[in-house]
Amino acid sequence: MTEHNQVTVGAAELGDLATRLSPGALTTDPDVIAAHATDEALFCPHEGSIALVRATSAGDVQEVMRFASAHRIPVVPQGARSGISGGANGSPGAILLNVSRMTDVLSINEAERLVTVQPGIINQDLKDHLAPFGLSYPPDPGSVALSSIGGNIATNAGGLCCVKYGVTRDYVRSLQVVLADGTLTTLGPQTAKGVAGLDMRHLFIGSEGTLGIVVEATLRLIPALPDPFTAVATFPDERTGLQTVADFMAAGGVPSILEFLDSSSLKMLNEFGDFGLDADAGSMLIMQVDQNPADSEAVMAKFAEVAESCGALDVAYSDDPADSAALIAARRMIQPAYEKFANAHGGGQLLDDVCLPRTAVPEFCDRLGELRESSGLVISLVAHAGDGNTHPSVFFDASDADQTAKAEGVFAEIMRIGLELGGTITGEHGVGYLKRDWLQHELDEGSRRIQLAVKNALDPLGILNPGKMLSAI
Amino acid sequence: MTEHNQVTVGAAELGDLATRLSPGALTTDPDVIAAHATDEALFCPHEGSIALVRATSAGDVQEVMRFASAHRIPVVPQGARSGISGGANGSPGAILLNVSRMTDVLSINEAERLVTVQPGIINQDLKDHLAPFGLSYPPDPGSVALSSIGGNIATNAGGLCCVKYGVTRDYVRSLQVVLADGTLTTLGPQTAKGVAGLDMRHLFIGSEGTLGIVVEATLRLIPALPDPFTAVATFPDERTGLQTVADFMAAGGVPSILEFLDSSSLKMLNEFGDFGLDADAGSMLIMQVDQNPADSEAVMAKFAEVAESCGALDVAYSDDPADSAALIAARRMIQPAYEKFANAHGGGQLLDDVCLPRTAVPEFCDRLGELRESSGLVISLVAHAGDGNTHPSVFFDASDADQTAKAEGVFAEIMRIGLELGGTITGEHGVGYLKRDWLQHELDEGSRRIQLAVKNALDPLGILNPGKMLSAI
Repeated sequence: MTEHNQVTVGAAELGDLATRLSPGALTTDPDVIAAHATDEALFCPHEGSIALVRATSAGDVQEVMRFASAHRIPVVPQGARSGISGGANGSPGAILLNVSRMTDVLSINEAERLVTVQPGIINQDLKDHLAPFGLSYPPDPGSVALSSIGGNIATNAGGLCCVKYGVTRDYVRSLQVVLADGTLTTLGPQTAKGVAGLDMRHLFIGSEGTLGIVVEATLRLIPALPDPFTAVATFPDERTGLQTVADFMAAGGVPSILEFLDSSSLKMLNEFGDFGLDADAGSMLIMQVDQNPADSEAVMAKFAEVAESCGALDVAYSDDPADSAALIAARRMIQPAYEKFANAHGGGQLLDDVCLPRTAVPEFCDRLGELRESSGLVISLVAHAGDGNTHPSVFFDASDADQTAKAEGVFAEIMRIGLELGGTITGEHGVGYLKRDWLQHELDEGSRRIQLAVKNALDPLGILNPGKMLSAI
Repeated sequence: MTEHNQVTVGAAELGDLATRLSPGALTTDPDVIAAHATDEALFCPHEGSIALVRATSAGDVQEVMRFASAHRIPVVPQGARSGISGGANGSPGAILLNVSRMTDVLSINEAERLVTVQPGIINQDLKDHLAPFGLSYPPDPGSVALSSIGGNIATNAGGLCCVKYGVTRDYVRSLQVVLADGTLTTLGPQTAKGVAGLDMRHLFIGSEGTLGIVVEATLRLIPALPDPFTAVATFPDERTGLQTVADFMAAGGVPSILEFLDSSSLKMLNEFGDFGLDADAGSMLIMQVDQNPADSEAVMAKFAEVAESCGALDVAYSDDPADSAALIAARRMIQPAYEKFANAHGGGQLLDDVCLPRTAVPEFCDRLGELRESSGLVISLVAHAGDGNTHPSVFFDASDADQTAKAEGVFAEIMRIGLELGGTITGEHGVGYLKRDWLQHELDEGSRRIQLAVKNALDPLGILNPGKMLSAI
């Protein structure tokens, strides 16, 4: 990485910047800065930022980047700060550049099935806004109610529906971004197809604020999704549940959601609330399909057949939208349930995000079992199983240094096993601070070199979100 | 662009390179070089290449790039040379690096729905290979029977089915590429989701051989597509046909194919062969839907209702796969039909590729009518109308310098109109030589600058396909 040769800026320079921004956008109040210096990640540094700018326009973002380039000081782009890899955490000497006040829906074009939004709009708010138009924006990260579209684009966020509908990338038509020097540029055409030059739009998606800052996004929509059918199957153990996933997908299944919960997760969910789940099952699958009723019935029957042949304890399904909504709501309660468990056991939880070839998940699950035995720690597992995207959580007593160190070791070992089994260290959460030391183990020498070359070409002063993603490769 | 400081290489150096390649891979025979120096584009320079290498392994490609880097000589990556923008045309002093002999299917993974291939395999051959496994690779450029997967990736090829199934980009899981200096690297994980670092895979897709050379691709597959229902509607003029497209899509239609042919195209098709088409219609739509029979029936009825309300002359549809295949085969005969017409009228045809917002296509069509009147030239129009991707063709007497110049002017004016109406100069054919002077008009200053920065970062010697895509921005 290019080392930035930081110039000290003081109150005078920041005061001058403030006059060029929307009124009240900039603050240097240490308490306010501290309150905005972290996302939801644990164990990531976040201190030392010198100012917070709450931008309300692209012009504010441009002014900050011009200032930062002139003074060679780092900028940390932020949205809702709901990420869990520390990508939005503060850095020494940095300006926190927060776009969460830029929440407007700028236009909806029903004929083209497009919506243009500012980056700070919350994913669920966008979905709600679109519903009356009979249009849907599918990407649905677990943080759908908290996370912003700009952050979703910065991390190429996934979610539950990816197994059928894909990830954020698949719905970005064009972006307006502010580059490191403050230049505003449009990436990608407004048209359904377009191959004019290198695809900078796709380069910026998932770049975690290291190449520029999204200030406007035009998103592709699809007709409103039909009400789904939802099946729940319980199994005596994890293997049989995961085998059902592999067999069902190999049989041509096209679910819109296919989620796996292990026995620890089921127990924690049941301790968190009464969702009517079988707390004694060894694992559970939630499967949705959203085709027409006749087709959905047929898929449900196929799923039941596969599950039973794998040894399911019970399979039930429903075409009642209320049942479907309740089941998915229960699934989305998994993180609060984990937190309740963690808080009762010393407060520590490390959430991992290893995506594997679908067929490698059973082996991965066995390896987690070995880690449980060797470490003595509680390790739970939920997975977007249709995609092979697993989320193991390691629980520990955060007040116990030995246990904390052991948990961090287990967290790393989970990534190592993921790579060994042909997977990636991060399926959808991003690298940020949390996994920066691990990225070098996933990428080969050529990839590392060209990633750094691209980063240096677009951010020659190294001021965009330094110390994150590519900083340790 | 970085100017490459070319070092002269002679027979001795090339002979030395030959010894490091697969036997017989390299030739300096001028006739063989000339026979490999063009793709299907008109009016593009193609002369001066010094050698042809027909690679049979990634190792061959690496050796050529090491040699080219050492001697600072240009390399033109080539596949089937079926492109129509001159992107595979020879360059002065260049080695033509052709991968069309690398045609192996390396593996099929039914459980993961993945196939790994060498880049030279022809798209249709891959489809045929997959059929017995009940798997489908959807992207279907017009050149499906001729073009190779490597070329499809290099141009992010589209086709007929994009309106439902997307483009080549949507099916690329991971790539092995050889970089400018000969380094072999893997871009993208083998998993369904993955966000570890900048997405170099998506940067390379559509980069037209200017960043590196794809030597292996792992592609995402979907279950075999069901037999489609196909509707044909004829209209008294172009406007009513195009209005049907806009209204049908606005009503939530999700066709798998939605093609438009104007009256000129219908006449030329009828002069080429007996496809049972109404040669007197003002325009025609071919619409396919591939849902289950009941849903498909309902979509067909909706389409007929919309078409009739727009003033259709006739609407007919069929669930007989033979009828569907015949109609699509007729549509795919449009280029040979154009060639027959062109050959009977002086041989000149310039095929354009302007993609527009779907709702701008009727206005675009009117503007083509004005161009016909002002130029006196025959201008036909076919369009992947569901995507707004138009392919106007300008016909002219290539032996007449004035008419040729006029045709080139009309070709350019079509792109200008496309940009004015919010479109792109190329929806799926790429920039190559043919449109390099036009790219600067589509991209803003910031985009041009970062595209060049990325190109220079990955190809600092400027040896990869120079003089093409980004060479005039």
